[in-house]
Amino acid sequence: MSGNTFGNIFRVTTFGESHGVAIGGIIDGCPAGLPMDIDFIQSELDRRKPGQSKITTQRNENDEFEILSGVFEGLTLGSPIAFIIRNQDYKPSDYDNLKNVYRPAHADYTYDAKYGIRDHRGGGRSSARETAARVFAGAVAKLLMGNHQPEIKIQAYVSQVASIKVEKKYSELDLNKTESNIVRCPDESVAEKMIQQIEEVRKEGDTIGGIITCVIQNVPVGLGEPVFDKLHADLAKAMMSINAAHGFEYGSGFEGAEKKGSENNDNLIPSPSPKEEGVKTKDEERSALKIITMTNNAGGILGGISNGMDIYFRVAFKPVSTLMQTQQTIDSNGNKVELKGKGRHDPCVVPRAVPIVEAMAAIVLADHLLRNKNSKLIP
Amino acid sequence: MSGNTFGNIFRVTTFGESHGVAIGGIIDGCPAGLPMDIDFIQSELDRRKPGQSKITTQRNENDEFEILSGVFEGLTLGSPIAFIIRNQDYKPSDYDNLKNVYRPAHADYTYDAKYGIRDHRGGGRSSARETAARVFAGAVAKLLMGNHQPEIKIQAYVSQVASIKVEKKYSELDLNKTESNIVRCPDESVAEKMIQQIEEVRKEGDTIGGIITCVIQNVPVGLGEPVFDKLHADLAKAMMSINAAHGFEYGSGFEGAEKKGSENNDNLIPSPSPKEEGVKTKDEERSALKIITMTNNAGGILGGISNGMDIYFRVAFKPVSTLMQTQQTIDSNGNKVELKGKGRHDPCVVPRAVPIVEAMAAIVLADHLLRNKNSKLIP
Amino acid sequence: MSGNTFGNIFRVTTFGESHGVAIGGIIDGCPAGLPMDIDFIQSELDRRKPGQSKITTQRNENDEFEILSGVFEGLTLGSPIAFIIRNQDYKPSDYDNLKNVYRPAHADYTYDAKYGIRDHRGGGRSSARETAARVFAGAVAKLLMGNHQPEIKIQAYVSQVASIKVEKKYSELDLNKTESNIVRCPDESVAEKMIQQIEEVRKEGDTIGGIITCVIQNVPVGLGEPVFDKLHADLAKAMMSINAAHGFEYGSGFEGAEKKGSENNDNLIPSPSPKEEGVKTKDEERSALKIITMTNNAGGILGGISNGMDIYFRVAFKPVSTLMQTQQTIDSNGNKVELKGKGRHDPCVVPRAVPIVEAMAAIVLADHLLRNKNSKLIP
Amino acid sequence: MSGNTFGNIFRVTTFGESHGVAIGGIIDGCPAGLPMDIDFIQSELDRRKPGQSKITTQRNENDEFEILSGVFEGLTLGSPIAFIIRNQDYKPSDYDNLKNVYRPAHADYTYDAKYGIRDHRGGGRSSARETAARVFAGAVAKLLMGNHQPEIKIQAYVSQVASIKVEKKYSELDLNKTESNIVRCPDESVAEKMIQQIEEVRKEGDTIGGIITCVIQNVPVGLGEPVFDKLHADLAKAMMSINAAHGFEYGSGFEGAEKKGSENNDNLIPSPSPKEEGVKTKDEERSALKIITMTNNAGGILGGISNGMDIYFRVAFKPVSTLMQTQQTIDSNGNKVELKGKGRHDPCVVPRAVPIVEAMAAIVLADHLLRNKNSKLIP
Repeated sequence: MSGNTFGNIFRVTTFGESHGVAIGGIIDGCPAGLPMDIDFIQSELDRRKPGQSKITTQRNENDEFEILSGVFEGLTLGSPIAFIIRNQDYKPSDYDNLKNVYRPAHADYTYDAKYGIRDHRGGGRSSARETAARVFAGAVAKLLMGNHQPEIKIQAYVSQVASIKVEKKYSELDLNKTESNIVRCPDESVAEKMIQQIEEVRKEGDTIGGIITCVIQNVPVGLGEPVFDKLHADLAKAMMSINAAHGFEYGSGFEGAEKKGSENNDNLIPSPSPKEEGVKTKDEERSALKIITMTNNAGGILGGISNGMDIYFRVAFKPVSTLMQTQQTIDSNGNKVELKGKGRHDPCVVPRAVPIVEAMAAIVLADHLLRNKNSKLIP
Repeated sequence: MSGNTFGNIFRVTTFGESHGVAIGGIIDGCPAGLPMDIDFIQSELDRRKPGQSKITTQRNENDEFEILSGVFEGLTLGSPIAFIIRNQDYKPSDYDNLKNVYRPAHADYTYDAKYGIRDHRGGGRSSARETAARVFAGAVAKLLMGNHQPEIKIQAYVSQVASIKVEKKYSELDLNKTESNIVRCPDESVAEKMIQQIEEVRKEGDTIGGIITCVIQNVPVGLGEPVFDKLHADLAKAMMSINAAHGFEYGSGFEGAEKKGSENNDNLIPSPSPKEEGVKTKDEERSALKIITMTNNAGGILGGISNGMDIYFRVAFKPVSTLMQTQQTIDSNGNKVELKGKGRHDPCVVPRAVPIVEAMAAIVLADHLLRNKNSKLIP
Repeated sequence: MSGNTFGNIFRVTTFGESHGVAIGGIIDGCPAGLPMDIDFIQSELDRRKPGQSKITTQRNENDEFEILSGVFEGLTLGSPIAFIIRNQDYKPSDYDNLKNVYRPAHADYTYDAKYGIRDHRGGGRSSARETAARVFAGAVAKLLMGNHQPEIKIQAYVSQVASIKVEKKYSELDLNKTESNIVRCPDESVAEKMIQQIEEVRKEGDTIGGIITCVIQNVPVGLGEPVFDKLHADLAKAMMSINAAHGFEYGSGFEGAEKKGSENNDNLIPSPSPKEEGVKTKDEERSALKIITMTNNAGGILGGISNGMDIYFRVAFKPVSTLMQTQQTIDSNGNKVELKGKGRHDPCVVPRAVPIVEAMAAIVLADHLLRNKNSKLIP
Repeated sequence: MSGNTFGNIFRVTTFGESHGVAIGGIIDGCPAGLPMDIDFIQSELDRRKPGQSKITTQRNENDEFEILSGVFEGLTLGSPIAFIIRNQDYKPSDYDNLKNVYRPAHADYTYDAKYGIRDHRGGGRSSARETAARVFAGAVAKLLMGNHQPEIKIQAYVSQVASIKVEKKYSELDLNKTESNIVRCPDESVAEKMIQQIEEVRKEGDTIGGIITCVIQNVPVGLGEPVFDKLHADLAKAMMSINAAHGFEYGSGFEGAEKKGSENNDNLIPSPSPKEEGVKTKDEERSALKIITMTNNAGGILGGISNGMDIYFRVAFKPVSTLMQTQQTIDSNGNKVELKGKGRHDPCVVPRAVPIVEAMAAIVLADHLLRNKNSKLIP
């Protein structure tokens, strides 16, 4: 109800303010018996952590986590998995000048108006520091998905920074190269330009936006609930809930609005091996039938339910709000003030948002995987 | 859990298949004492109903509703408001040929795979006929919002059909003109072209997509919950749950990804009359303070919470999937079949989707209005 | 949130006022493919309906239902099952004198205080007429449970009326005799006395309370979630939500409070055939192991989870609040008034509450059956 | 969904195994601006903690908590309040002999059957150690209730141990004396006998059950939602979710089943001062009207909604399951084993359950207080 929980069966609740004691969360609803790969979880957090490269904030947080419950002898118990990440390198004094100031493009004013109180240090609860808890939960979701469907791949990458775009389609890229550069763009020549662009912008004390593309391959068929909880609707909410996200599209997206049905419809053809050996009843045949489509403008989702084709979507992020430039704003008494940039911040959020996008996608899929266990009669 | 409910306090659950007995729903959580304006509700349904103009499907449904509960002597009781709309002009025989066919770009295959059973008549539960129930619920949500904040306006319009775009910003348009033409575009010269385009496409037996812009003015400050239930995240989910929606953006949206922070940040200035007469304590001052921003790239939402500026967003719709052309597809046994268009369908969904977009926006706002009652200590 | 929905995956939302247009509900989350046995559902409603015998109210309602959605060619679709039961024999004029009167032991005052408005006709939403919708939903839940576990039996009976008690334990009774008399007590000599008692009380214009015992046999092991959603906690809530319920106990119940651990603990012994043929791995052995306990003070539930033994519990109902006698009360202006009984009412609620208790038990079990699909890793 | 969350708006999620790293929880939905009285919270935990007297377990836990988030400068922020209590005096070796044994009356077998894995150390998640987190959350709920309605009092006490009963009604007792003795019974002569009884039972290596009565005075009118979420239904679930609870009754309870309506109905009289000064409109009159009833068999709740009279209920607890005696049971392979008592355990749970009962009652009330903000139109 207060917006700190995501998911229905695989439920993630996060807590924590940017410069409070700790951030963390509880994952409730993870089935019992899942091996917890601690190193994998840490490696996911490392992809998001600050200070990882020259184009990210220099705040120094190792983002080491402690699991408090729900895991026993390396396996999940079926009980809530609580985890915490203590805040270490916080400098509240960086924020003393902001106690009564409403920073432009930040949530300072709206939190004050809504709650009548505000933790001004680094944005408090509105800070993107909260997303570390999402990455933890997303890592567990990835483990769960991988346990069920080993060949599934959830891969996001930076496809645009400012006006520098990856022109190739995702299918023309080697997505395993994403982690090979600090901007997380698998097209290496484009990556170089993006890095350059971000460094220039940083030198100006300015910031810049970008776009992340996410591709999910080998998705189980049947994920997503009709009507309100369509798979893409839940993905949209998940992505738009990430700090600074301003746009979401999947499949043919905004371009699809310009297309004719005869261009946009994906024709169905039977999958090369539609029938497994020994399958006999009509029902079994039907459920064994895999389809493929000649094109994939649907983005792997029809009527809100995955059809087994690749799911792909794009998320637009606005430029980071904190500038190292002087801005005009007001304080909580309504007086005009000049705001001078201070603190340590990212000039461009998208490289660090890549693992966050993947994490939220994994949480949505894991939740729908569990929800889908009850679509048909229990065998 | 099964995806047929939307909202947390103002909760809407819909039911019904396209060619079943009836569609309808239950609104639970509407506060008691709200006058039910039956004529207004019907007028909203009329904006969505089929057969309203030459550019919509000719299925003939009056969409007359019956309220079964929750209203007494013209006022809501605080108990669930159940309503039904019986299906009248259904021609199941139109669909006999589809019993075992998976139509391209429809949910036929995915429903079969997920449920092992499917109501093939007009798409069953996956049909956009379900949205009539949303429009009913949205009308009640509008009444609730209007009761609380009479000056609020939720206005959507068609801003693009195929590549024909309204170039003017919403603030340069007279949004009261939206209903003056059948395509629901307030820019009349553009509207004319859109209608022409839709008619051409229909003659070809083809369909076309489009974009709807929605503007919400005089929004209360403080709506939206941090982290996962950001106001724009809930709007994104609400919009993406509408049939055929493939993209959502708010504020500077995808364009914002190309901007610098210094361009995109909206500077704050105090509202012309920040302090009401007689306001005295510091807390009262703070909550009386209204801000405005010089620009509005944030789209009226900061940190997921409304700041009182206009909320505006855009929703992209793919072309309607049912064509009056021959398409290649397969049946449920995996055999190739040729599908010939039949039935009565819209060549372009966006004119009828305008009231649906408004309805879903109203539901999101009404729900967050009620949720927000508990952000601070109870007075 | 407004209290009209019960269940998590198998979700039941009911609507309707006692003398409004109709009552009914939506079942969301019933898996697809379940045969809907219409006759069985009607027979369950008939067990609850008014006018069924000389010891029940003479209001004449056939409680015929209409299913509006979610069922196709006799099978559930996986989409919401909406159903309505129109109110027929309502005499609102019976209630004109109650418009401004707060009846003792009824919800008149509390509804007025809470909502500021009230449907005074027969108690409106607070009437037990709502329970017809529960019986419909419970019948579907029974069908679902029976489909999964054919040997399961959910059987309630009247074990006490006033101070007339069935002294035998449930295991000494033939529960198939419950429906053989109008008071629904399987001990026929006791039943006779109960009927006599109810008739006497009715002649006095008075009412009387009673107790229902419910027994569930052949329950699947593993139903119930730890901590807050213990199976007996959800049963307690379900039962206490039934109109007039004032007490719940399971297993050794209130008597257990007087026992020593050495008396109350149920010793475990292995089930006669703990190991099925061909079972081999340690995990399979463990999950194939069925236990039995020498006694069953636990009432079939340990740590909130069913252990496969009989579940049994008792529900206490207060006497019906509407008397055919004169009572002292006040009106909504605070003035004293004399209230004279009018209308048609039950002298004792428990015979008609038997199917309601079963229905709520079935809904709880069905919901937990579906919830339990995700306790372990997906096979 | 997995049963670790309680409440709708004031939502409490707990985590932790008895001998894991820590237990704790997240409170989400507590309004902003509430002063957090740390000392009060600790004092509530101290009432529950082990080792507090000669009649409780000697496990030594100080139950010192750490608040990780949601509080800033002593006030709640409106964001999630996360708290942890580290386990200190755990002796896992005490439990080595239980690794494969199913203890009678414990959740060992059911957890194994449900999850296929089990933390055998002290019962893991099924341990009553989890209730420390409830007491923390209940303390915050008490602070919230007290902030809203300072005169509210939630007071539980031990009214029965074995067959030793407090014969006086709660209204004849001085409930402030409850904490004056270690068994938490305000009737001092009865308390003495209870303590003696518990000590005797302990010497035998046995355990004993008991009953707790809880009284809530000065309750706001209007709390509780009709139909499924009746105030007493939520209280019943809350109480029955406490470890070892086997029965719940409120108002006239099980005894009410033997009463006639003419005896059980509480006649209404206007409250001595029904109308406040200056109240004028009819609506205001109505909502200002307070009623009282001459008797209170309803237990302060009519139709599921509080009427302003005292709420009172009783909770029955079975004897503690762990005995210091030899018991017959089986291991996870189905072999018979003799179980010898070991570890440190309470001979009687009710003295320590008093603050848990109060905590759960406070959480239910706080949640319904917040839910009730939306019963009528927003002022």
